[in-house]
Amino acid sequence: MAKSRVGLWLIGAKGGVASTAVLGLLALKKGLVGSAGLVSELPQLARLDLAAWDQFVVAGHEIRRVPLADEAMRMARESRHPVLPGVVDQCQSELEEIDRRIRPGTTLGVGNTITALADWFPRGADCQSAQSNKSKACPSETPRQAIARLKDDMAEFARRENLTDVIVVNVSSTEPTFDASKLPLAWADLEPQLDTASLPASSLYAIAAFELGYSYINFTPSLGESPSAIDELARLRGACHYGCDGKTGETLMKSVLAPMFARRNLEVLSWVGHNIFGNMDGRVLDDPANKRAKVASKDHLIGDILGYRPNTLVSIEYLPDLGDWKTAWDHIHFAGFLGVPMTLQFIWQGCDSLLAAPLVLDLVRLTEFAHRGGHAGQMPFLASFFKSPYGVAEQCFDRQFTTLEAWANAHSRP
Amino acid sequence: MAKSRVGLWLIGAKGGVASTAVLGLLALKKGLVGSAGLVSELPQLARLDLAAWDQFVVAGHEIRRVPLADEAMRMARESRHPVLPGVVDQCQSELEEIDRRIRPGTTLGVGNTITALADWFPRGADCQSAQSNKSKACPSETPRQAIARLKDDMAEFARRENLTDVIVVNVSSTEPTFDASKLPLAWADLEPQLDTASLPASSLYAIAAFELGYSYINFTPSLGESPSAIDELARLRGACHYGCDGKTGETLMKSVLAPMFARRNLEVLSWVGHNIFGNMDGRVLDDPANKRAKVASKDHLIGDILGYRPNTLVSIEYLPDLGDWKTAWDHIHFAGFLGVPMTLQFIWQGCDSLLAAPLVLDLVRLTEFAHRGGHAGQMPFLASFFKSPYGVAEQCFDRQFTTLEAWANAHSRP
Amino acid sequence: MAKSRVGLWLIGAKGGVASTAVLGLLALKKGLVGSAGLVSELPQLARLDLAAWDQFVVAGHEIRRVPLADEAMRMARESRHPVLPGVVDQCQSELEEIDRRIRPGTTLGVGNTITALADWFPRGADCQSAQSNKSKACPSETPRQAIARLKDDMAEFARRENLTDVIVVNVSSTEPTFDASKLPLAWADLEPQLDTASLPASSLYAIAAFELGYSYINFTPSLGESPSAIDELARLRGACHYGCDGKTGETLMKSVLAPMFARRNLEVLSWVGHNIFGNMDGRVLDDPANKRAKVASKDHLIGDILGYRPNTLVSIEYLPDLGDWKTAWDHIHFAGFLGVPMTLQFIWQGCDSLLAAPLVLDLVRLTEFAHRGGHAGQMPFLASFFKSPYGVAEQCFDRQFTTLEAWANAHSRP
Amino acid sequence: MAKSRVGLWLIGAKGGVASTAVLGLLALKKGLVGSAGLVSELPQLARLDLAAWDQFVVAGHEIRRVPLADEAMRMARESRHPVLPGVVDQCQSELEEIDRRIRPGTTLGVGNTITALADWFPRGADCQSAQSNKSKACPSETPRQAIARLKDDMAEFARRENLTDVIVVNVSSTEPTFDASKLPLAWADLEPQLDTASLPASSLYAIAAFELGYSYINFTPSLGESPSAIDELARLRGACHYGCDGKTGETLMKSVLAPMFARRNLEVLSWVGHNIFGNMDGRVLDDPANKRAKVASKDHLIGDILGYRPNTLVSIEYLPDLGDWKTAWDHIHFAGFLGVPMTLQFIWQGCDSLLAAPLVLDLVRLTEFAHRGGHAGQMPFLASFFKSPYGVAEQCFDRQFTTLEAWANAHSRP
Repeated sequence: MAKSRVGLWLIGAKGGVASTAVLGLLALKKGLVGSAGLVSELPQLARLDLAAWDQFVVAGHEIRRVPLADEAMRMARESRHPVLPGVVDQCQSELEEIDRRIRPGTTLGVGNTITALADWFPRGADCQSAQSNKSKACPSETPRQAIARLKDDMAEFARRENLTDVIVVNVSSTEPTFDASKLPLAWADLEPQLDTASLPASSLYAIAAFELGYSYINFTPSLGESPSAIDELARLRGACHYGCDGKTGETLMKSVLAPMFARRNLEVLSWVGHNIFGNMDGRVLDDPANKRAKVASKDHLIGDILGYRPNTLVSIEYLPDLGDWKTAWDHIHFAGFLGVPMTLQFIWQGCDSLLAAPLVLDLVRLTEFAHRGGHAGQMPFLASFFKSPYGVAEQCFDRQFTTLEAWANAHSRP
Repeated sequence: MAKSRVGLWLIGAKGGVASTAVLGLLALKKGLVGSAGLVSELPQLARLDLAAWDQFVVAGHEIRRVPLADEAMRMARESRHPVLPGVVDQCQSELEEIDRRIRPGTTLGVGNTITALADWFPRGADCQSAQSNKSKACPSETPRQAIARLKDDMAEFARRENLTDVIVVNVSSTEPTFDASKLPLAWADLEPQLDTASLPASSLYAIAAFELGYSYINFTPSLGESPSAIDELARLRGACHYGCDGKTGETLMKSVLAPMFARRNLEVLSWVGHNIFGNMDGRVLDDPANKRAKVASKDHLIGDILGYRPNTLVSIEYLPDLGDWKTAWDHIHFAGFLGVPMTLQFIWQGCDSLLAAPLVLDLVRLTEFAHRGGHAGQMPFLASFFKSPYGVAEQCFDRQFTTLEAWANAHSRP
Repeated sequence: MAKSRVGLWLIGAKGGVASTAVLGLLALKKGLVGSAGLVSELPQLARLDLAAWDQFVVAGHEIRRVPLADEAMRMARESRHPVLPGVVDQCQSELEEIDRRIRPGTTLGVGNTITALADWFPRGADCQSAQSNKSKACPSETPRQAIARLKDDMAEFARRENLTDVIVVNVSSTEPTFDASKLPLAWADLEPQLDTASLPASSLYAIAAFELGYSYINFTPSLGESPSAIDELARLRGACHYGCDGKTGETLMKSVLAPMFARRNLEVLSWVGHNIFGNMDGRVLDDPANKRAKVASKDHLIGDILGYRPNTLVSIEYLPDLGDWKTAWDHIHFAGFLGVPMTLQFIWQGCDSLLAAPLVLDLVRLTEFAHRGGHAGQMPFLASFFKSPYGVAEQCFDRQFTTLEAWANAHSRP
Repeated sequence: MAKSRVGLWLIGAKGGVASTAVLGLLALKKGLVGSAGLVSELPQLARLDLAAWDQFVVAGHEIRRVPLADEAMRMARESRHPVLPGVVDQCQSELEEIDRRIRPGTTLGVGNTITALADWFPRGADCQSAQSNKSKACPSETPRQAIARLKDDMAEFARRENLTDVIVVNVSSTEPTFDASKLPLAWADLEPQLDTASLPASSLYAIAAFELGYSYINFTPSLGESPSAIDELARLRGACHYGCDGKTGETLMKSVLAPMFARRNLEVLSWVGHNIFGNMDGRVLDDPANKRAKVASKDHLIGDILGYRPNTLVSIEYLPDLGDWKTAWDHIHFAGFLGVPMTLQFIWQGCDSLLAAPLVLDLVRLTEFAHRGGHAGQMPFLASFFKSPYGVAEQCFDRQFTTLEAWANAHSRP
C-alpha cells in the first residue's frame, strides 16, 4: 500500500528558515545528512508512528520573487559550512520543482519594513502595477478576498498533489505588534468583520488554513492564530495549531538556566542579553515596530520562571557582515549566600536558520501525527519548542520537555 | 518545650567551606543575612519539618592550628564583599566558642600535600615533636586507634552539648585517588583489618561517626563512606549518609546544559572546561595526585547524560591572586542541523566557599530530618547536590531536583 | 623652605570619580596604598619635577548636599574591595575638612536629568525655595552672574589656602550634546553674550577658571572649554587646558586593539561594544540626551584609526545592581587572509571610578607642572588620557603614549 | 625586460601553513582574493620595491606523501569558508605542478611524534623499506649526508627554474626542545662535527640553505638557524635569516595588551591563556616534548614587557573536532588604583593557517628585498612578526612595528 502524502505549506517560503527547512528535508530524503538537531529523531519519540521524511511535499506563500534555489544557496554560504553548497547543488531540480508551487502571499498588516521587501503579487490584481514600486503593497484586496485567494492556493496544492493533510507553518518575518484586545472573542463575531478588519497577514493565513481543516504552526511572535476567535475556528474545523515564536538559541538558554538559579535559590539581580546577527530577519527586526514583539517574547520568561522581576534588558541588533550567524552575549548578575554578587556570562554562536529549520520539520511531523490521531485546537505538549507557548505558564524547558515525553509515551506503539 | 539541639561536626573545620558555613549559620541565627543560596529555604521545601538554624551547634576536626575567626575573616576578605568583614566582627565570640570545640584530626592517608599543611596534632601523641616539622604527619596511631580517638571527640561533643543527633560533614581537602577495589565488601571482613588497613582519613571519620550512629555527608570526592563495607556499617547502626563531591559551579552548569543539548539532539563534539582559582582547595589540587580525583568527578557526567563520549577536557589550576574566586571557562562545540558546527561558551565567576557553604547547611538540615524520620543508609533524593551521587545514574540536574521535590512532598506536613 | 601648595578644584566634587580621587589622594598622602593605576608614577616620568601628593589641597563645586564621606564610603562598598571601607574610616576628618570647602555649583544647561539630582544651591538665591522640590533648578542667575559666583568661590579657596596655583577638573555628569557651531569664534565676541548665552555649566566653570588664570581639565564629553573662544581666553590668561572624556576602559581597549588590526591588515567588518554599569554616571547616561555625547565619544576612534568605517555600535546601559562595576563586552568581526571572517571578543570588568580617579590625579600633576613651566593653551601631549583629545588626529594609544614619553624626556631633570 | 624569478622553498611544504600560503599565493596571482591579512600590502610599505606575487615560484621539502592539492582542499574545508573550495578547484593544475617540485625531507632530530607522521623518504635510501612502517625514520643518513642531499634539492630547483634567489621558510611542525648550550659557537668548530652532531632537522635545512647563500626564515620555535655558529655561516655566505615562531594570534594579543597595562601602571597579577585547536600542529603539540618549546615561546613576553613576573599559565590543547580553528581564552587579573583587582578576558577565534600564511608571504617578500639590497645575517626590523625575535629585547608590538615602518621609510623609493 502506498504511503500517504502530507503537504507542508510554508508562509515565507523563501526566507532563511523556510529555505533551510526545505533543503534539510531534501537532504534527509536523499540520505545526505544525519539527524542532528531533529527532536523528532530522539529515541524518546522513536515509538511514535510519525510520517517519514519522504511523505512530505512542500509549497507555500511568499512575497518576494527571488528563486528558492538562490536563497538556499545564500543560506548555505552564510552557514559557512563548506559542504552545504554541494548539498544545494544536488537538490537543484527538487528546489525548482518546489519553487513552481509557491504562490504570492499577502502584505496586509505586515508593516512598512516588510512591505518594502515585497516584489511579487497575485496576477490580475491592481497591485501588478506596484511591482515597479517596491515600497507599495498590493492595495486591492480586502481581508476576506485575501483569505479566499490564499485558501484557493492551499486547496489546489492539496488536490494536485493528492495530499491527505496539509500543515501550514508561519516562518515569515515578524510583524509589528498588534493589539488584539479589541477583537471579538467568538468566531461568529469576527467572521462578519473580515471585509474591513485590520487583521495582519499571519492571521489571514491561519483563517485560510483552518477553513480548510488544515493545521497551523506559528513559529514567529506575530499575531497568527492566537486570538481566541481564530482558535475557536480551528476547533470548529478540527484543525490543530500551536505557537508562538520558536525557541532556538538565547531564549532556549534562558529557559534552561533560569530554573537552575531558582532551584539553587540564587537571586538573579539582573539579566542582560545582547543579540547581534545579519540575516533578513535581522533587517526586519531593525525596525522598532517589528522588534518590539520579538523583545517581549524573549524577555518575559525570566520573571515567569523566577517568580520575581530582576532588571532585564534584551537587545537585538542587525550587523549585515554576520550573515546568518547570531551571537548572543548574556550577562547574569546574581546574589549568592550572604548576599555576595556573582556572575555568569554566556556566548552563544549559532547559525540561526539551522537552529530553527529542524524544529519546523519536527513540529510538522508531530502536528500531522496529532491531527491524524484526532487532536484539534492547541497542542500544549509542544510548549518546549516555543518562547511563548499558548496557554502554558510553565517556562522551564526541562518540565516542558517532560510533558512532550509523557505525551509521546501515551501515544507510542506498544 | 525546649527545642532539641543538633550537632554539626565538620571535618576540615577551619577550611574555606567550613568557616563560611559556620559564619553563615551564625549570621542566619542573628538574622543578619537572607536566605539566598539556601535550597532548604525554597518554597518547595517549606512544609518539611526541618530543624531551625538556632538548633544547630558546631564543632569538628581540623589539622591546622589557625584560629577559626582568622579563617572566617580571610574568607570574608577574599569574597570581596565589603559587608562580610563586619559580619565576622559581630560573630567573634561565637567563632571563638566554636573554635574551642574543634579537635585535632588525622592525616592518615591524606597524601603529602595535605600532610604538609598539618601543624596541629592530638596531645600526648608521639607526633607532638613533629609540630616543629610541618611536613611530617603524626606517625603513632593505627587506623583503629585514630577511629577510637575521633569517636571519643564526637561522643564527648554530643554529651557536653546535650545533642539529640550529630551530622558529620567532610569538607576537608580532596585526598589522592584511592583504589577501593581490593577492600572487602562486608563490614565483618573490613573491621578486623583496621589495625593495618591503609584507609584514608575521610573513611576513618566516617567509621567513627557510624559507630556512634551519627550520619555522614561526603562533600568531597575523597573515598569517605563510599566503600560498601562502610555503607553496610551505616545501615547496621541506623545512620544516614550520602555523597559525593558537592556540585556548586561548573559541574552544576554541565548537569544543566548537557541535557539541553541531548533534548534538542544537538551533537556535542567537544566540551572543554578550564577552572582557575586561588584558595587552599586550589593549592591542594595543584598536586596531581589530589587533582585526579576531582577531575574525574567533574568530567564523567557529560558522557553519562549524552549517552556518547565527546572529546572532553577539564583543567583545574591554582592562581593564588584569585583568592576564593573561581572562574570557569567552558567551550562547547556542537553540531547542529546538517552537521554545521556551532559554539556555546560560558564564564562562571563565583566565590567558591560561598557556593558550597549553603549546600552544606542544606544537607545537614535534610539529613537530620531524614534520620529523625527513621531513614538509614544512602539518601539518593539528595543527588542534585552532588557531582557523583552514589547509586544514581541520572545526572540531569532537573530530574535530580524533581526527585528531591517528590521526596519533600512525600514527607511534608499536611 | 616650605613646599608650595596647589589647589585641586573638582567640578562634581562628590561624584564617584571625585570622591575616589579624593580618597586616593588622602590614602597616598598617608602611605596607605601603592602607586597602581597612576601613570605619573611610572619610571618614564620619574625625572619630571612633579608636585608631591602632599602639596595638593582639594575643594570644588557640587549640586548635591550628600556628605563627601558618605559618597566615599558608598564608592568603597561598590568597589567590593574589603580593605577600602577601612581606608575611608581612616580619612574621616580629612574628608570632612574637604567637604567644608565645597561650594554649590550651577545647573545652567545641564539638562533635566542632572537638574533633577540637584538639591543644593547658593545661599540667598531665589532657588533656596527650590530645595524642597528636587526637580527644579536654581533659576535666578544669568550665565555672567554664575561665572562671577563660581570665580569668587575659586579665588577665595586660593586665598584662604595660600595656593600657588589651582587646577580645575570637570568630573561632573555628562551634559546633553551642545551644538557649538553657532558660538562666536573669538572671546571678544562671546564675552558680551554672557548675559543671555545658553552655555552649559561645564563651560561656565571653565570661563571662571581661565579668568583667574587657573587651568582646566575636561574629563567628560561635555562642552567645557572646547569652543575656540574659550580656548582663546585660556591662552590670553596663560592658563593650560585639555580634554575631553577620560579614556579609562572600553575605549582604551579600542585605541589599543584597533591599531593591531590595522597593522596586520586585518579588515574589521564590525565592532560592537556593549557597556553595562550601575553608578550615578550610568543613571545620567540613561537619558538619551546625555547618552548621545558619550556614545559619539566612544565610537569615533575605530574609524579614525582604521581609515575606513566598519559597522559599529555602542550601547551604554544602566543596571543599578552592578554598582560602580562596569562590564564591557566587545565583539569584533574581521576578515583575514583570503577573506575568511574571524572573531575577537573581550570582556572588561572594571571599577569605573577606580579607573578614572588615578588619571585625574595624574592630569592634575602634569598640568600643574606644565603650567609652572610656562605652558598655556591646549596640552596635546596628554592625548593618551582622553577618548577625544583636542586637536589630535592620532587615536592609537601607543603613539599618543610615545608623545607623552617624548614630552617627559624633553622636560626631565638631567 | 623580463622580471626576475624568486624561489620560495617551504620546509613542511604540505602542512597547513604551507598549503595555505601556496593557495593564497596562487589566488593572489590570479586576482581571486584581496590583500586582507598581508602586511606587505599596507600603505606604509607601498614604496618598497618588493617583488610582485607573480615572480614567486614554489617548491619545498616534506616528509608526507599526501598530495598538496588534498591538503589545500582540507584546509579550505577546515577554514569553513564556502568560497575557498572553489579557489582550490581553480588552482588544481598549479598545485599539481608545485607538488612535483617537492622533495623528501629529513626526520633527523624531529622526535617520535613527528617521525610517526613520516611516510615519504628519499629514493635509494635504506629507509625505503621503512615506508611500510610509518613509525620508523629513515636511518641511513648522517647529518652531513642529509645536508648535502637537501642542498642538492634546493640548488636543482634554482637551476631548473632559473631563479635569482631562493628564500627557505621553515613552517614544519614544532620539534622537541633542543639544548643548544653545548654547541660550539663558531661555524669552524661546528662544521667538523656534522658527521655525528645531533642537530635537529630545522638546523640541517638552514645549513643547507646558507651554504648556497639562500636566506632562511624560521616561522616555528624549533632550533633552526638560531645557534650562533649557524648564524655565522649565514653571514659568511651573505644570507639573511630571522625568527623565531610566527606571532599570529594569542601571542600577538599579548604583545599588544601587556604594554597597555604597563603604560597605565595597572599591575598584572596573573595572566592565563588556554588555547584549543584541532589541526596537525595541534596533534604534534599534544606531545609534551614538542609542546614545551611552544609554551615557552608563548609565555615569556608578558614578563619581558611588564618588567616583573606575574603568575602566568599557558595551555595548548588538541581537540580534533575544531579543525584549523583555534580558540584562545585569556584571563588577565590586574590590580588598579587602591589595589582593587579587576579583570580582562578575551576570546580569539581564528583560523590558524590563515593567520600564519600571509605572514609567511610577507616575510618572503621582505627578506628577498633585504637580501637583494645587500643585507646579511639577522633582520631585527622583522621582529613584529615573531613571538621570540632574535636579539630583540623589545616585545611591545607597537614598537616592533614602528621599527619596521622606520626601516621601510629608510629603504623606500623617493
